[in-house]
Amino acid sequence: MPQISRRGAQMPPSPIRKLAPLADAAKAEGTKVYHLNIGQPDLPTPRSALEAIRSIDRTTLEYSPSDGYRFYRENLTKYYRQFHIDLTPEEIIITAGGSEAVLYAFMACLNPNDEIIVPEPAYANYMAFAISAGAIIRTVPSTIESGFALPPIEAFEKLISDRTKGILICNPNNPTGYVYTPREMEQIRLLVKKYDLYLFSDEVYREFIYSDTPYISACHLPDVESNVVLIDSVSKRYSECGIRIGALITRNRKVHDTVMKFCQARLSPPLIGQIAANASLQEEDAYMQRNFDEYRSRRDYLIERLNRIPGVYSPMPQGAFYTLARLPLADADDFCTWCLSHFRYQGQTIFMAPASGFYVTPGLGRNEVRIAYVLNKDDLNNALTVLEKALEAYPRITGEYEHGTFHREADL
Amino acid sequence: MPQISRRGAQMPPSPIRKLAPLADAAKAEGTKVYHLNIGQPDLPTPRSALEAIRSIDRTTLEYSPSDGYRFYRENLTKYYRQFHIDLTPEEIIITAGGSEAVLYAFMACLNPNDEIIVPEPAYANYMAFAISAGAIIRTVPSTIESGFALPPIEAFEKLISDRTKGILICNPNNPTGYVYTPREMEQIRLLVKKYDLYLFSDEVYREFIYSDTPYISACHLPDVESNVVLIDSVSKRYSECGIRIGALITRNRKVHDTVMKFCQARLSPPLIGQIAANASLQEEDAYMQRNFDEYRSRRDYLIERLNRIPGVYSPMPQGAFYTLARLPLADADDFCTWCLSHFRYQGQTIFMAPASGFYVTPGLGRNEVRIAYVLNKDDLNNALTVLEKALEAYPRITGEYEHGTFHREADL
Repeated sequence: MPQISRRGAQMPPSPIRKLAPLADAAKAEGTKVYHLNIGQPDLPTPRSALEAIRSIDRTTLEYSPSDGYRFYRENLTKYYRQFHIDLTPEEIIITAGGSEAVLYAFMACLNPNDEIIVPEPAYANYMAFAISAGAIIRTVPSTIESGFALPPIEAFEKLISDRTKGILICNPNNPTGYVYTPREMEQIRLLVKKYDLYLFSDEVYREFIYSDTPYISACHLPDVESNVVLIDSVSKRYSECGIRIGALITRNRKVHDTVMKFCQARLSPPLIGQIAANASLQEEDAYMQRNFDEYRSRRDYLIERLNRIPGVYSPMPQGAFYTLARLPLADADDFCTWCLSHFRYQGQTIFMAPASGFYVTPGLGRNEVRIAYVLNKDDLNNALTVLEKALEAYPRITGEYEHGTFHREADL
Repeated sequence: MPQISRRGAQMPPSPIRKLAPLADAAKAEGTKVYHLNIGQPDLPTPRSALEAIRSIDRTTLEYSPSDGYRFYRENLTKYYRQFHIDLTPEEIIITAGGSEAVLYAFMACLNPNDEIIVPEPAYANYMAFAISAGAIIRTVPSTIESGFALPPIEAFEKLISDRTKGILICNPNNPTGYVYTPREMEQIRLLVKKYDLYLFSDEVYREFIYSDTPYISACHLPDVESNVVLIDSVSKRYSECGIRIGALITRNRKVHDTVMKFCQARLSPPLIGQIAANASLQEEDAYMQRNFDEYRSRRDYLIERLNRIPGVYSPMPQGAFYTLARLPLADADDFCTWCLSHFRYQGQTIFMAPASGFYVTPGLGRNEVRIAYVLNKDDLNNALTVLEKALEAYPRITGEYEHGTFHREADL
């Protein structure tokens, strides 16, 4: 039997999806499973998008252009203008979700063994796409105590070598919900400029910023126009994860043209998805406002309740729809697994994403979980009750939550 | 400005799409352009698929499972059973078109600098996906004189070294239309077995075999079950290129699980595409028969007319909807470009794919073009008239078609 590739062996299983078989098994036996693990919005897709899909009048579902339909890219320029990002349609490439945009950005910009620096915790799939491109992710840890603010910029600079090719940020941040301040963005800009690095910036949650921190896009930064590659997606803002429509945006013509060669090889992004995404741009403002209000109110409720559970701590996320919470136990991977495989409260259990998968540095985030607030408040309420009960019942905690030290029975 | 990657620089522009800007310019000035360049079927998508899309009753367009919906994979097992391919849903992974299946197959199976052997001419994007994975494509030329039959298996064996990891075939073949015989498939099987190679087999045109050569799938071959990775797509068989639904099929559990890690990283294949593809499986048989008859009759018409043009030669393709034809000139790249940029006949011109992009060996196929018969017969008739007139008018042919030697004015 021929061998699989080294890169295939290195690929991490998704920390968000790896426990899915346990969840499926729990559901199969009749347990109600609350999905706090995945950023799958429950809010409705814009009606305009659904109507556009339902009124498809084509007879043949054809390839679209490799960079996506021009009418959609033109409409996107108007969308970005609302955020003071001035683009031409030629600076936008439509991709199969933000995922494909990250992969092609890495493929076009990074050689095997090139390094990019990323604050951790970070969206786990960046690691997977870096491995796909043979590139190496170096991380600078942010801390829960600082609310996952940007680590000191000197810590980034210390990692820079000849092999460093770029910096990657996610803003607003998945998994932490942090929004980078103007001062932090200026620090990043200066570093990118000083070392002539790529700045990969994933900004798919720009619609969901609940604090007064203004949204500073990498595309707003002066003097680094040729360094910036923006990653975008309609998945989160319009609850359209399934249509697989994202975008890669760059004013760097060489990067654009190189990415386009990868795009031509895969022929075209999804046709019907583009029609739906384009229609969503026409949705009335009230739609976005309703979703925004709903997420903010869930966030307030979630964080307040989490922090009332003995030993649990969550900073207040300022954006996106996740929080990274610390639990009073040593091994969140074990706890999340146990919740799915063993724990039931009134026929219910919870599916959370262990935070370890969002860290690269071994040992970090072992007692943290990522919680997505993509459930309505009744379900969120029930899920939090299950979490409380699970923490009470979790058998292997023998120590008190003190000084961050825990003892599992197995360790004693 | 930071550098692009070496792999990005190496990526070939698509031979099918690179001349598209010239075609756009021709259309912009009012010229009718006949697209013979791209395998974009003009025949209608099944009505059942369009109806399924138009009756979407979801309120949120969610992620689907990373390997695709189980109901769709279950229905696919029935589809494959018609071709005597017995599969379980766990052996099928739904991908974003056949393209993603090829990319992930290479990513999961091949290390950088690993080699795979491919008969050439070959579908150009295999080269692009190999470059993406850092792998190297070695080719064994087939010849137009033999109708692009499998080259002697000894020629494959001669290329095998420690770095050889697999063989890749496309059957029925794009771009040649050749269908591998049982004897050829057995030769491939023995080689794969002898050296324990992967056999990547792209079989997206299985529905379109016009000769008596039976369809032998790589999945039919005994004793190499763990070596085979089948690439599939609904794009061609249901005229559904735009929905981006393909499949990667393997009975090798390790390959399956490794590919799944890449699939989890990109989260999910398109949702609406899966609904459309699933509905297409229920389409009545008359649909496939109509399309089959139409393609066969176009093929007969095309090849007969091509061979009547002085100096033009095309073998009779047995499957798919392409032929690779030899033209009486030295540089088909130049001719195809010239047709788009300079030649008009009664306000019309033609867009063909120069065959050079389908060969890896430099110099091969310079006087060949790939023609896709995806136009109705009236358009095909007009396009062939334009080709005739273009060949008469092409200014730089000074020699006669004799012994395969031509002289361009520039060479004299």
